[in-house]
Amino acid sequence: MTNRDEFFMKRAIHLAEKGMDSNAGGPFGCVIVKDDEIVAEGFNQVTSTNDPTAHAEVVAIRNACRKLGSFQLDDCVIYTSCEPCPMCFGAIYWARPKMVYFACDKKDAAKINFDDQFIYDELDKEFENRDITFVRLLRKDALPVFNKWAEKENKTKY
Amino acid sequence: MTNRDEFFMKRAIHLAEKGMDSNAGGPFGCVIVKDDEIVAEGFNQVTSTNDPTAHAEVVAIRNACRKLGSFQLDDCVIYTSCEPCPMCFGAIYWARPKMVYFACDKKDAAKINFDDQFIYDELDKEFENRDITFVRLLRKDALPVFNKWAEKENKTKY
Repeated sequence: MTNRDEFFMKRAIHLAEKGMDSNAGGPFGCVIVKDDEIVAEGFNQVTSTNDPTAHAEVVAIRNACRKLGSFQLDDCVIYTSCEPCPMCFGAIYWARPKMVYFACDKKDAAKINFDDQFIYDELDKEFENRDITFVRLLRKDALPVFNKWAEKENKTKY
Repeated sequence: MTNRDEFFMKRAIHLAEKGMDSNAGGPFGCVIVKDDEIVAEGFNQVTSTNDPTAHAEVVAIRNACRKLGSFQLDDCVIYTSCEPCPMCFGAIYWARPKMVYFACDKKDAAKINFDDQFIYDELDKEFENRDITFVRLLRKDALPVFNKWAEKENKTKY
């Protein structure tokens, strides 16, 4: 951990408080850094924008990718004020930064009623036992589209 | 499964193919239905918009919430052409629809090189053993912001 790491994390924490104080959403902030410079920032905007995906990390990732003109965050470092929820964890893996620093963890989040653990637990359940029921339907109709992708020549992989 | 369920899933599969054919992104489509009517649709747009979060389900959820003016998809049903990845799974749980239908599953997706299972496996690993390293930093600086949220009076919970 360097002084720069502390600086960037304190910025993420500042954004968490700023977003909360302005009623943008919950108390979460995120900074994305490349070559020791801030590329993009984000704070939670779920309730103010009616977007349940507008968590700090997703907002920051979308901003950073737009700025970098890439769907991959090569060589970037993410500083987030709280351990990512499963949605943000997935977004981070699809974006492929090289590292993630986080401050509070999911137990801290659960204590203020952001219960990510519930979603982690649901992930491990069978489809029919989940709180939101998942049902298979028409796989035979969808498979040909997957096969068409496999055979497609002019495609951008990700 | 009703004829309407089949109709909506076929529409999601159609969107998957349409998005792929137009080079918007991967072969994934999604439809969100409320009161037996389509509220919003989405297809994967990752590579065309440089947004790694622009999976079919996330695009459709954002569109549906914007249209409904809510960050919750009460009484909505999601039809997606493929079992959601961890990111989309998290987005679905935050949006709280009543049910999810999916066609292809994550094994089908892995066969065409969309390896969600890798992310599922990473979720279960210790921070230091993950492919993307996760490191704790400055929790003591971030906790006061969480405490401020707990005590905040004029907040919109979600």
